[in-house]
Amino acid sequence: MIKNEISTAVVRRLPRYYRYLGELMESGIERISSNELSKKMNVTASQIRQDLNNFGGFGQQGYGYNVEFLYLEIGKILGVDKKHNMIIIGSGNLGQAIANYANFERRGFVVTGMFDKNPALVGRTVRNIKIKPMEELKEYIVKHNIDIAALTIPKLEAVHVAEELVKYGIKAIWNFAHTDLNLPKHIVVENVHLSESLMRLSYNLTRAEKQNIQ
Amino acid sequence: MIKNEISTAVVRRLPRYYRYLGELMESGIERISSNELSKKMNVTASQIRQDLNNFGGFGQQGYGYNVEFLYLEIGKILGVDKKHNMIIIGSGNLGQAIANYANFERRGFVVTGMFDKNPALVGRTVRNIKIKPMEELKEYIVKHNIDIAALTIPKLEAVHVAEELVKYGIKAIWNFAHTDLNLPKHIVVENVHLSESLMRLSYNLTRAEKQNIQ
Repeated sequence: MIKNEISTAVVRRLPRYYRYLGELMESGIERISSNELSKKMNVTASQIRQDLNNFGGFGQQGYGYNVEFLYLEIGKILGVDKKHNMIIIGSGNLGQAIANYANFERRGFVVTGMFDKNPALVGRTVRNIKIKPMEELKEYIVKHNIDIAALTIPKLEAVHVAEELVKYGIKAIWNFAHTDLNLPKHIVVENVHLSESLMRLSYNLTRAEKQNIQ
Repeated sequence: MIKNEISTAVVRRLPRYYRYLGELMESGIERISSNELSKKMNVTASQIRQDLNNFGGFGQQGYGYNVEFLYLEIGKILGVDKKHNMIIIGSGNLGQAIANYANFERRGFVVTGMFDKNPALVGRTVRNIKIKPMEELKEYIVKHNIDIAALTIPKLEAVHVAEELVKYGIKAIWNFAHTDLNLPKHIVVENVHLSESLMRLSYNLTRAEKQNIQ
């Protein structure tokens, strides 16, 4: 169904399409035109047509898009139609927030294990998951077919732990530590650098303040 | 110092430069060439020269960049040389994680207040900040010169609360709710959509798995 390689820019936009299509489905809407979707999503209709054309033949002139079909196809492309086991390393507030977020599970990301080096946290239970000590990490990954590790630990530990995770067979790291992980190319790394996000906010706020003064 | 309007792509990269320059300063490094920085940051030296040229005259041929000067200048552009008061709305795990992250304060983002509608959380203290009920939100924002609100509440409440915040005079929203906020143009919105990040990870993981099969 996919024509060729999809550009990174389109890939970045796909989850947003997926979210909007999911909401349309929940509201019982079966078909939508690129113009209507354009108004909802605040992007141009031509952008929408261009983006969705990447997947070939979804839209029918004059009939609009079949919402459920498009939702399912984009889901397949994103790989959220499959189940992926995930562990969380670092069970502080951020790790617990991720574990508690039920929506991830709906999308096929099942948190099966949580780890921490802090003895005060080990043994506690978050959403029926008992926090384990770091010493059990290797055996757990090997035994339980874990694809993804969310890394919610300080940056000084993150680099070393990430290297260990790769040795144990982890395929993808969701990195919340404020550092870049330099891992082998076949390992997928998705970064969430919160302080960089806050600096972008700050940049835009500073610019807005300057414009108000002028 | 800034030549003209900086492109969005460069702005997106600035926080990463800022982070690397900060680390270089911490290691006591005073000057660095674009080639050395290129190796560290895993981007081409010509990209670095192009990006940093936006700010004019930082690099000297053969001498490299003055690390501290560049760090401070980029800090000014990002607006992290000024203090901004921030409140957190939604004091669950994610809100607490943000409140506990001391690094934000180093960058000038000072969390002064936390709010929640859950009576079980109201009155509790996180890093010396007492969680307040939502009823006190308006008065607090007006009295305390708050610029930024981090929104760590479910999407169904987020839209309404964001509109209230704008009425009370908030200038920027750091939005963690899984929805787009359609606010007046002069309000800065920076989104952190974690489930979209996880879907991008999933897309890349799915692609990597397919390549391994072939």
